[in-house]
Amino acid sequence: MMQNYSLLTDFYQINMMYSHYQKGTINKRVVFDLYYRKNPCNNGYCITAGLEQAIEYLSSLSFSDDDLAYLNQVESYDSGFIEELRKLRFTGDVWAIPEGSIVFPNEPLMRVQARVFEAHLIETALLNIINHQTLLATKAARVTQAAGEDPVLEFGLRRAQGPDAGIYGARASYIGGVSSTSNVLAGKLFSIPVAGTHAHAYVQSYPTELDAFRTFVESFPDNAILLVDTYDTLSSGLPNAIQTFKELHKKLGREPKNYGIRLDSGDLAYLSKEARIRLDEAGFTTAKIVASGDLDEFLIRDLKMQGAKINVWGVGTNLITSKDCPALGGVYKLCAEEEDGQFEPRIKVSENPEKITNPGIKKVLRFHSKKTGRALADVIMLNEEEAPTGRFEIFHPIFTMKRKTLQNYYTEEVLVPIFKEGKRIYKMPTLLEIRNRAIQQAQQFPSEVLRLTNPHEYHVDLSKALWELKNSLISKAKPEIEIE
Amino acid sequence: MMQNYSLLTDFYQINMMYSHYQKGTINKRVVFDLYYRKNPCNNGYCITAGLEQAIEYLSSLSFSDDDLAYLNQVESYDSGFIEELRKLRFTGDVWAIPEGSIVFPNEPLMRVQARVFEAHLIETALLNIINHQTLLATKAARVTQAAGEDPVLEFGLRRAQGPDAGIYGARASYIGGVSSTSNVLAGKLFSIPVAGTHAHAYVQSYPTELDAFRTFVESFPDNAILLVDTYDTLSSGLPNAIQTFKELHKKLGREPKNYGIRLDSGDLAYLSKEARIRLDEAGFTTAKIVASGDLDEFLIRDLKMQGAKINVWGVGTNLITSKDCPALGGVYKLCAEEEDGQFEPRIKVSENPEKITNPGIKKVLRFHSKKTGRALADVIMLNEEEAPTGRFEIFHPIFTMKRKTLQNYYTEEVLVPIFKEGKRIYKMPTLLEIRNRAIQQAQQFPSEVLRLTNPHEYHVDLSKALWELKNSLISKAKPEIEIE
Repeated sequence: MMQNYSLLTDFYQINMMYSHYQKGTINKRVVFDLYYRKNPCNNGYCITAGLEQAIEYLSSLSFSDDDLAYLNQVESYDSGFIEELRKLRFTGDVWAIPEGSIVFPNEPLMRVQARVFEAHLIETALLNIINHQTLLATKAARVTQAAGEDPVLEFGLRRAQGPDAGIYGARASYIGGVSSTSNVLAGKLFSIPVAGTHAHAYVQSYPTELDAFRTFVESFPDNAILLVDTYDTLSSGLPNAIQTFKELHKKLGREPKNYGIRLDSGDLAYLSKEARIRLDEAGFTTAKIVASGDLDEFLIRDLKMQGAKINVWGVGTNLITSKDCPALGGVYKLCAEEEDGQFEPRIKVSENPEKITNPGIKKVLRFHSKKTGRALADVIMLNEEEAPTGRFEIFHPIFTMKRKTLQNYYTEEVLVPIFKEGKRIYKMPTLLEIRNRAIQQAQQFPSEVLRLTNPHEYHVDLSKALWELKNSLISKAKPEIEIE
Repeated sequence: MMQNYSLLTDFYQINMMYSHYQKGTINKRVVFDLYYRKNPCNNGYCITAGLEQAIEYLSSLSFSDDDLAYLNQVESYDSGFIEELRKLRFTGDVWAIPEGSIVFPNEPLMRVQARVFEAHLIETALLNIINHQTLLATKAARVTQAAGEDPVLEFGLRRAQGPDAGIYGARASYIGGVSSTSNVLAGKLFSIPVAGTHAHAYVQSYPTELDAFRTFVESFPDNAILLVDTYDTLSSGLPNAIQTFKELHKKLGREPKNYGIRLDSGDLAYLSKEARIRLDEAGFTTAKIVASGDLDEFLIRDLKMQGAKINVWGVGTNLITSKDCPALGGVYKLCAEEEDGQFEPRIKVSENPEKITNPGIKKVLRFHSKKTGRALADVIMLNEEEAPTGRFEIFHPIFTMKRKTLQNYYTEEVLVPIFKEGKRIYKMPTLLEIRNRAIQQAQQFPSEVLRLTNPHEYHVDLSKALWELKNSLISKAKPEIEIE
């Protein structure tokens, strides 16, 4: 994060902070869970991303004089409140699931334990950061899964929802599996490999297409990917590209490191097959065919099924905006609150059982098969519960008759400590380590869970203790509802 | 814009710049048009937004040592190229349609006339900024049109695609017609009114809902909007709110300036009608009913048709991500190029007639009825053409038999000068002026063009001279295509 985002919050957070200030309860400690209820794009899972930026945000939380002057002008707050804001730093504890992890609905991706004064303020920015990047990493995982072994280039910056959407979208896409980005600033900030060739305007600005190609490969003899659809792909672009490759091979006396063509319009299945034949006939069997143009995971899958001869996929708008599912609905809910020095569980009820929150301070255990290392199920449990070791029965938290017994497993605690009393105690992994984590995590799950369409629902159950706590709080919290 | 975005570009722009550097053509002057081909969300128009940020971006264009060191490490560029980048500032001319204008497909929203070295570099960031904000202003215009006279509160920050999407999305939404935002930072940066009440977590953190309400109105006696669905809207939230209002009226000895309830779940038509009855019965006929929860323009329209008693609409995810159409497909195309000291028109052909560009340096004239001031048609013409004054026949650029004769009109040139030789010569309007412009512009168009669903297509035609130039260039540019 490159600026002071302390005011990046909803106004109602400031109002609630003020009310706590007036009531004298700003130091009351509370616990919030950040989680989502539904996988985006009908996917079977999410890949977490954004923790690094969330950490930077929390670490730099501090209102400037400017910020305070602005707030003072918006509402006539008590001056003591402004002084409390001036002193405010993040002093809480945070646990989170590391970036690049595979996660599921209702699992706390982050748990914040802090003064209510701080816990309210940070909700909006944390959700903004985690929702966006987790969505993009997940969408990128779908796109790269469809592309199989072929590299995917993210190049959606011009259609992204503002600069940050392009910058952090590129970062999250890299976590989710793309090989490179066109976004130079993202490349600089996060050491993501950058890639790119040239545009139609470049070809247009030369007297002929052949002139343009010749000039381009003079500058980039070993990155000679030529865009062939400015005039006509098969009758102009391709023959000119082949002519250019012949001259280039001759001049270099060897094969260029990276060369080929880019198709950006027309029927990509037909054109790529035709181009492959003609490139091969000309002896350029190692020339790459890059495709772009409104691609998404479904079109890539279809083109591959039709035998399209495409080696590299450039994906823009549909990835960077996650076009068919442009928001992840992450929420941040109170689960416990200090009372007489002790944390008491809290619940929010709803007519919709799926919207009732899980109360108390919780952890998530992932059960792995001892034999294969494969993930078997996740169980959300109370923090004080010990991890089981013997035969262990899990059950669906809503359809409780759905049961399964686990054995021969080991458990992994997926939330790790990030902040302790406002101090970061987490060693940030590099982006490449995060990306590798995502690749390794995918190998722990059956392909049925990872499937693009209609995936198998992975078990995420509640421990018996948590389930009982939840039910007892529901019956206490829910007032009698009159049916009218 | 709050940071140096000089590297916020696609890598291929840098590559093309390098190729021009090596060829010795970096100073060749070129002209690019920025425009879009299709209105988003099946809308009948767009509202322009983002020019101010585009101006700030161009004004601050300058590579830091850091940026250059990074580029040097990405590719082994000639050191003379790096020196050219170090010296680079924006030195070109720009014309643009002011923010808050109603515009249509194929109209140049911005025209850049600059050295090819600069013109390539800036494409991506200009598109990113203008695409995003124009999309959001347009989406906000749809949502606020559905809400009619009722104010709309934008509060999508937590679901926006990163911080900027929330910040500039709030700015654009305000241009498009929302009354306020929940985003405090956007409020500070752009003087947008901020609004907000409290969250479910606030209610949960008090022993009872009534305690929470009482405490809240103590802090905000004149902004007493109470969220009533934490436990149960009709049997708990509403009676507690009414009780709180009674106490508050008594204590103040007058009506609070702003008070009422917020409904955030359940059937908003039923609940709002029921709540209105009970509030009125209790004497609180001036209490407002605010609604939120996955609202968009269609749901707002339907709820109003059903007689929902809602006074204020809070819109989040569906607005801030423009969920059903999350990208505007703006493009940036070469239209002219210097040759022997003169600009020569350039075209990009395509098999798809709608993707063939309009060549040459152009202006857009809007024809208004002398009698009513209403907009009659827009005509894209060559810059050197004089604005007509007498009877004037316009025709559809693709279906040329569609013709219409205009008379008793006056014309308005919609592109205005912004930069002259790198110097800003445009006086930036305030955000409120921009918002007012959008409101005034809407009054110039028939409601059929502004309709949410299946709007009437407004005439945007080409002048005869431009149409003939285009056709002559198409026949020259298009190579013979062999049908195989």
